[in-house]
Amino acid sequence: MSFPDQVTIVEMGPRDGLQNERGVLSVETRISLIDRLAACGLSRVESGAFVSPKWVPQMAGSAEVLAGIRKPKGVRFPVLVPNLKGLEQALEAGAEEIAVFGAASESFSQRNINCSVAESMDRFAGVLTAARSHGLRVRGYVSCVLGCPYDGEVAPEAVAEMAGALYDLGCYEISLGDTIGVGTPLRAAKMVDVVAKRVPVEALAAHFHDTYGQALANLYAVMQQGVSIIDSSVAGLGGCPYARGAAGNVATEDVLYLLQGLGIQTGVDLEALAQTGHWICQALGRQNQSRVGLAMADVGNY
Amino acid sequence: MSFPDQVTIVEMGPRDGLQNERGVLSVETRISLIDRLAACGLSRVESGAFVSPKWVPQMAGSAEVLAGIRKPKGVRFPVLVPNLKGLEQALEAGAEEIAVFGAASESFSQRNINCSVAESMDRFAGVLTAARSHGLRVRGYVSCVLGCPYDGEVAPEAVAEMAGALYDLGCYEISLGDTIGVGTPLRAAKMVDVVAKRVPVEALAAHFHDTYGQALANLYAVMQQGVSIIDSSVAGLGGCPYARGAAGNVATEDVLYLLQGLGIQTGVDLEALAQTGHWICQALGRQNQSRVGLAMADVGNY
Repeated sequence: MSFPDQVTIVEMGPRDGLQNERGVLSVETRISLIDRLAACGLSRVESGAFVSPKWVPQMAGSAEVLAGIRKPKGVRFPVLVPNLKGLEQALEAGAEEIAVFGAASESFSQRNINCSVAESMDRFAGVLTAARSHGLRVRGYVSCVLGCPYDGEVAPEAVAEMAGALYDLGCYEISLGDTIGVGTPLRAAKMVDVVAKRVPVEALAAHFHDTYGQALANLYAVMQQGVSIIDSSVAGLGGCPYARGAAGNVATEDVLYLLQGLGIQTGVDLEALAQTGHWICQALGRQNQSRVGLAMADVGNY
Repeated sequence: MSFPDQVTIVEMGPRDGLQNERGVLSVETRISLIDRLAACGLSRVESGAFVSPKWVPQMAGSAEVLAGIRKPKGVRFPVLVPNLKGLEQALEAGAEEIAVFGAASESFSQRNINCSVAESMDRFAGVLTAARSHGLRVRGYVSCVLGCPYDGEVAPEAVAEMAGALYDLGCYEISLGDTIGVGTPLRAAKMVDVVAKRVPVEALAAHFHDTYGQALANLYAVMQQGVSIIDSSVAGLGGCPYARGAAGNVATEDVLYLLQGLGIQTGVDLEALAQTGHWICQALGRQNQSRVGLAMADVGNY
């Protein structure tokens, strides 16, 4: 068994996490969260989304958030952008990196971003051309890579096609999202296997949700295939919108604990991260979804 | 990667689970729980413990529990027995299988069963001789196989020695307990590797707690080495006595979901099991610790 020596964690808490929480945090609290996360040693913290505040009130004020954070050298703060209007706002706010999101499943695309997969690709082409002309890095998300809440199973080939198209359009990295957390290790490994034939494995990130508790086992499996970029969310912030009481993003603390045990470097301070998780859960008035976070609090690690 | 075609689940909820819950359930509720679990297709359900009700009030009335359950053909209902007095009670209650428990760590042995590892082996020898003369099957537990709350790391060789000694004394199976859930996959795999040189891998069970959320990843790793017996607890019953708010036994629902995804047969009905988990959590007035249980309830699977 071989694993990467080093893994990059892309912290999702302030964006994918918070946007799926019921509570809406103030701009100040979101700035503190991002500053704290960067101080833990994370090199990439997704910090906001330029989407309609009518639909996603949790992400309102993303420009103020970007303006208020500390931005230490070497740390990147990407923001999500659905279309050209969002891109304009992101540019105005001084974003240096954006992310676009599509789905590998037709029904999810229709319901989540109101267009077909083919139409979404046209939209991305416009956003990517404009973004790159401004020198922005662009990351691409593919959702529903291991299953769709409407269509059920999703073929790895459909994931590879979308991932490849985004990569060809100029995304430097493709994040493969098990949006509803239904995957299991062999299916995750098979999916990565198929996608890696189309996009270099070094440019693939695993974005797994822990809805069915399988995320760490799935990460363990895909790391054996060379995946070395992992999306996760402090304290497991973010529920699953398709299963309300259930867990959302895999918790960064739990991923770090796994990686430490495998001797894989991340540069992130687990203790500081767990403290941040504890703090943000108090701010949200919600239970910590990180098992490591809960256990560390209990045994007095922080 | 190769996995067993079939895995036997040894259900721990009514014993290891309940004995670590704060609430004390009535004998009637415990009987219902065991009957329901057996009806889900589980072939082994640990059903009680003949220990002092002063120390473990949750297990008081284990004889009445054994007398009251349905005992369908082909299903085994082992009980835990700490010493000869417990064995006598188990025999009187008509138990056909017992389990004895020791620790791979000296400090844990002293604090948990009030004797040294060497003394515990003498005690087991007496219990095993008597039990086998009555035709009972005996299972052996080794705790702290991946770490001890007092001593920290535990050498795989110490685990192998204790496991081997119990096997030599006549235990038909050795259950390897990550009692405090601190293990990660490579350490779990290495431990099994060392132990399997002393005890046939077919006679090894993985008994992992999910305190740090690593249990499924660890199971995934040790199944690749041929382990095909897994201890788990419906709804993740049982906290960790060394980290009070934290998770205990890995949830049977989460294990079943993993195994289904790997195409491994268990004979257990996941939906019925999840319903049972939901029901017992209501009886205990506690939150379901199974992510699969929570997700299935949310998406209306039961």
